[in-house]
Amino acid sequence: MMTLYDCSTAPSPRRARIMLAEKGIAHETVQVDLRNKEQMSESFRAINPHCTVPALHTEDGLLLTDNAAIAAYLEARFPEPPLLGVTPADKAEIASWHWRVEFEGFLAVGEALRNSSPGMVNRALPGPHDYAQIPALAERGLLRTQHFFDMLNQHLANKTYIAANQFSVADITAVVAVDFARIVKIKPTDQHPHLLRWRETMAQRPSFSL
Amino acid sequence: MMTLYDCSTAPSPRRARIMLAEKGIAHETVQVDLRNKEQMSESFRAINPHCTVPALHTEDGLLLTDNAAIAAYLEARFPEPPLLGVTPADKAEIASWHWRVEFEGFLAVGEALRNSSPGMVNRALPGPHDYAQIPALAERGLLRTQHFFDMLNQHLANKTYIAANQFSVADITAVVAVDFARIVKIKPTDQHPHLLRWRETMAQRPSFSL
Repeated sequence: MMTLYDCSTAPSPRRARIMLAEKGIAHETVQVDLRNKEQMSESFRAINPHCTVPALHTEDGLLLTDNAAIAAYLEARFPEPPLLGVTPADKAEIASWHWRVEFEGFLAVGEALRNSSPGMVNRALPGPHDYAQIPALAERGLLRTQHFFDMLNQHLANKTYIAANQFSVADITAVVAVDFARIVKIKPTDQHPHLLRWRETMAQRPSFSL
Repeated sequence: MMTLYDCSTAPSPRRARIMLAEKGIAHETVQVDLRNKEQMSESFRAINPHCTVPALHTEDGLLLTDNAAIAAYLEARFPEPPLLGVTPADKAEIASWHWRVEFEGFLAVGEALRNSSPGMVNRALPGPHDYAQIPALAERGLLRTQHFFDMLNQHLANKTYIAANQFSVADITAVVAVDFARIVKIKPTDQHPHLLRWRETMAQRPSFSL
């Protein structure tokens, strides 16, 4: 059975967790306590030298250590239900929106958080190098997150799903990004009726309660 | 026949151009003169309201306006030769490295350029919103680009290709990112023998002269 190294309070592993649930893939879950820096421990470093979650360990010993790898792998090995699209046109639309949601949404919230949080001094970017916080970048991250909410609200005006008239990885990453924005005190408001309606529709899927 | 709206001097459309060439897909090319802001003209706006290149117009009237969409579409419609991998494990490794190259390389160079160039005041990010340049972010972009070169050099120590022992979209985006870095005066040096050897191997592919 596959094992997901997860952290129930963190946004990145939530993306992998939802994808596994949506595809109905049996797996074990190991919680890694990021608040107490368990990811830096010797025992976890032996599992994932990158010291990050999500990390997905497959039955045949493969270790996938980011959402790009996990999404590509799960879709190829468990094609049903498809989350990256089936036809060339649908695959294109989903890939495009997934990229926008990741760049304009997920990364923008991360920028706002990492460049302002007292707990993340010198950790303005993930990865092995320390980077100092840039206060102007925290401000810009907040502004970009607002623009992302406005853009997504407008886009969803006549749509049930973000891309290609189907539930996809673009919806998964967008839900996680929108929820993640609470940490920098940004939530959808009355100004975002379409975004709120879409979020409520998504809430009906059991995977989003995980 | 498909039409690629291209600009021979710009890095983003170069990625699409190389992918089309590697797959041997017949297409027409229309040059859009970004230096003279032709992408903002009425006539181009009628083709691509996003005012960006690359834009790929397919025979059946689909318009793909970013590299995420173009790569997903071309791979699905023209699977040979594969550029995103075939097995689940190869797809995962290629997607993971493609994401790293894009985030740690391509975006880092863009960050350094857009936050310092006198021609890009208030254009620190692409897209419809203006964002002021952040000088500290330009500096960080240069540092990240150096780290990217060092990381890639180390990664390529015993490898011909970046991911999954095969030529892939990760190599394409990495070549474009490494060449793009010249604009902020960063080039591989004697400190990057593996990166230089890989770049020379890539130069033997006719697509990289396009």
